[in-house]
Amino acid sequence: MVQNISDMFHAQSVAVVGASANPDKMGHTILHNIIAGGYRGMIFPVNPRGGDILGYPSYPSIVDIPHPVDLVVIVVPAPFVPDIIEQAGRINVKGIIIITGGFREIGNDALDAEVMNLARGYGIPVVGPNCQGVNYTPNKLCASWPLITAKGPIAVISQSGTIGAAISMWAEKDEIGISAFVSLGNRSDVSEIDLMYFFAEDEETRCIALNIEGVSDGKRFIDCIRKIADVKPIIVLKPGRSPEGQRAAESHTKAIGGDDAVFDALCRQFNLIRAYDLDEFYDLCKLAAFISSPMGNNLAVITSSGGSGILAVDAAVENGLKIPKLSDESISKLKEILPSQCVISNPLDLTGDALADRYSDALEVLRSDCTFDTFLVIFGDPIPDTAEVFLELMEKSEKKFIVSYLGGGDVEESEKNALHRISIPVFPTPERAVKAISAIQKYYERKDEKKDEV
Amino acid sequence: MVQNISDMFHAQSVAVVGASANPDKMGHTILHNIIAGGYRGMIFPVNPRGGDILGYPSYPSIVDIPHPVDLVVIVVPAPFVPDIIEQAGRINVKGIIIITGGFREIGNDALDAEVMNLARGYGIPVVGPNCQGVNYTPNKLCASWPLITAKGPIAVISQSGTIGAAISMWAEKDEIGISAFVSLGNRSDVSEIDLMYFFAEDEETRCIALNIEGVSDGKRFIDCIRKIADVKPIIVLKPGRSPEGQRAAESHTKAIGGDDAVFDALCRQFNLIRAYDLDEFYDLCKLAAFISSPMGNNLAVITSSGGSGILAVDAAVENGLKIPKLSDESISKLKEILPSQCVISNPLDLTGDALADRYSDALEVLRSDCTFDTFLVIFGDPIPDTAEVFLELMEKSEKKFIVSYLGGGDVEESEKNALHRISIPVFPTPERAVKAISAIQKYYERKDEKKDEV
Repeated sequence: MVQNISDMFHAQSVAVVGASANPDKMGHTILHNIIAGGYRGMIFPVNPRGGDILGYPSYPSIVDIPHPVDLVVIVVPAPFVPDIIEQAGRINVKGIIIITGGFREIGNDALDAEVMNLARGYGIPVVGPNCQGVNYTPNKLCASWPLITAKGPIAVISQSGTIGAAISMWAEKDEIGISAFVSLGNRSDVSEIDLMYFFAEDEETRCIALNIEGVSDGKRFIDCIRKIADVKPIIVLKPGRSPEGQRAAESHTKAIGGDDAVFDALCRQFNLIRAYDLDEFYDLCKLAAFISSPMGNNLAVITSSGGSGILAVDAAVENGLKIPKLSDESISKLKEILPSQCVISNPLDLTGDALADRYSDALEVLRSDCTFDTFLVIFGDPIPDTAEVFLELMEKSEKKFIVSYLGGGDVEESEKNALHRISIPVFPTPERAVKAISAIQKYYERKDEKKDEV
Repeated sequence: MVQNISDMFHAQSVAVVGASANPDKMGHTILHNIIAGGYRGMIFPVNPRGGDILGYPSYPSIVDIPHPVDLVVIVVPAPFVPDIIEQAGRINVKGIIIITGGFREIGNDALDAEVMNLARGYGIPVVGPNCQGVNYTPNKLCASWPLITAKGPIAVISQSGTIGAAISMWAEKDEIGISAFVSLGNRSDVSEIDLMYFFAEDEETRCIALNIEGVSDGKRFIDCIRKIADVKPIIVLKPGRSPEGQRAAESHTKAIGGDDAVFDALCRQFNLIRAYDLDEFYDLCKLAAFISSPMGNNLAVITSSGGSGILAVDAAVENGLKIPKLSDESISKLKEILPSQCVISNPLDLTGDALADRYSDALEVLRSDCTFDTFLVIFGDPIPDTAEVFLELMEKSEKKFIVSYLGGGDVEESEKNALHRISIPVFPTPERAVKAISAIQKYYERKDEKKDEV
């Protein structure tokens, strides 16, 4: 149980026990990433050999550091860990991250218990052991790998280091960023539940990406999601859905996933947003990061590519969204302003020679069509200056604009990030956009229903 | 109907009617792409204004060109097209591509019919009108956009220009490449059926990516797929599955898609591989491009990321693949050679510090395990030198190796392409890999069943 994990995230100083000048060592990677991540607190490499490491003077042990130490990151082999916890307790650190493996995950339950008992005795929260560390971008504290510096609205809590890293890297590459990446490892102390409570209050976090293979404590988990699932969207990827997958999960993290149908029912009851594969996990996080108020289920599709528009319509129908007709007023206004080859319906096909200005013109009309408050805008060619389409619209309108950009090559790559910078989410295919819209729309719909029940 | 579209693809000379020095014009783009694509036949810009265009002397009309012209690409406005067809007939061209729109797609059926009657009278096949052209990489003939030069095994036939362009661009970026991209447009003459017959015989093509909103001729279509679906894998994306999508397809290309359940049954009966969204369409093409013989449905999963392995297992179970146990012999051999933290089962978890050599060691053992002939190898970290894992194995073994690479950042990007260069297909998530394996496995299974029936 955790007293105050907030102090750990906001640590003003950090010691890396097992820091190394050898780039092949984990103790190098962690120290390097803390420095390269731009951490502005004090940094203390700890290594009995002494000398400078990556330009910072090292100390033989944490008790030798002549300043207060808030956070201790441990990278030394498992048998040395209890001593370091003892020392950490004596100098009143506020948090410990144990990267080192060799505990419960390989059957060494006794060592795991010894370490946790010590830490609990001192009241120090511990992340890990056997984990990939903690990255909290608001404090520029990347005590983790990979090195991710892009600050953004998604807090990633992950039992799988790779899945958490993949989501974080995608979010960085897309210029969306993360508020945090916490690798749970054995989660012998700090659990997904403690972290969800923290991120629910964290102002830098708009949505929580949760990857777990089983819940750490069923009753506390339900209490937690009952309280916070409607505060911030929680997107959950819980593999081990099949019995075969469940068995694999048990050998991976000793997680008891339980009956998947029960977990699924829990998600529906308490409004967790469940993703069923890794792409969907990221897509839902992306949309939840940008959309933070209810959206309707009437979708208007505007496209330069008729074929892509049809993909969107099929996906919408299959995911419970509606594609209503345009109002007569919209139709007559659009007929006035659009070239004759455009197909004026929903989807609205602006045709292949459409540039950004044609989208602006069309959206300027459609934003007044009260049938719609959600717009899927498909750019199906290398169309430049797409961010300008939305900047003015967003000032004048509360409508939701979601983009799918495809067939645009290098232009697509830069436009996608330009759109993300102005908080317009971009998906690589129309179907992925639609699936995400459907899931987030349902989240807000259920949230509203629950409010009404109260 | 088409006499010989092969001559068009293998054209030794090409005229662009409507070639322009103005980079904003389509007549510039087409000419530019033919030149920049490295076309080694003769190139003749046609423009009544005369002068050089992009370094090539232009001619007032095609009849003024003092050399034989095999292919004519038409970019001038629709009303001028009939005259050009007449001229093309007089100089015995072998194929015509009409990029220009303004025909049947906007209700101008008469002009469409006039043009087609003229061309048929002369026996010249016509692609289009209202299309994005033809790219045939074995002839370095990019009479199309986008400019794609990467030669590869996938022939893309697409009713939607954007969908075809997206697939082609992804294949180029992934260093897989295409043999062709043909944009059908109104397909007033050359149809998807003619093209499927051509690509079935084309030595450069290993699989056919077919995007249509409806078939051009039901009876001929069935005849065609009956003959060729087992010759080369045909992956088909046919949007308009929902009634709403079907209506949108009708306004897009006047396509009558028919009852989707009927088309679905057709796919099953004649062994078309149906994709249900754009990502899947590309994934299936990618796998079909690299795997050209039967694969079993017993899957071995080898991973550095336990969590990703579980995603693969769930997806395998949901898609009808089996994850059998490793043989006792494999287990005891693996126990000898792998570090103690590895989880020796299926999935085989090599754990987070695995580098390429650990994969090599494990696969060297498993390739002799007769339970498996298909291996999903997941690299869940920035692991370098992965191509070397497979080079030797591929020489010694007929087994199928499919990769999912994730959480690898820049290393992943370069490794992915290195793997594609040695014909190992790479997928961005385990689930996408598994779905593709399942679909291609079923294709070969059905193909074998049909052979047995004969």
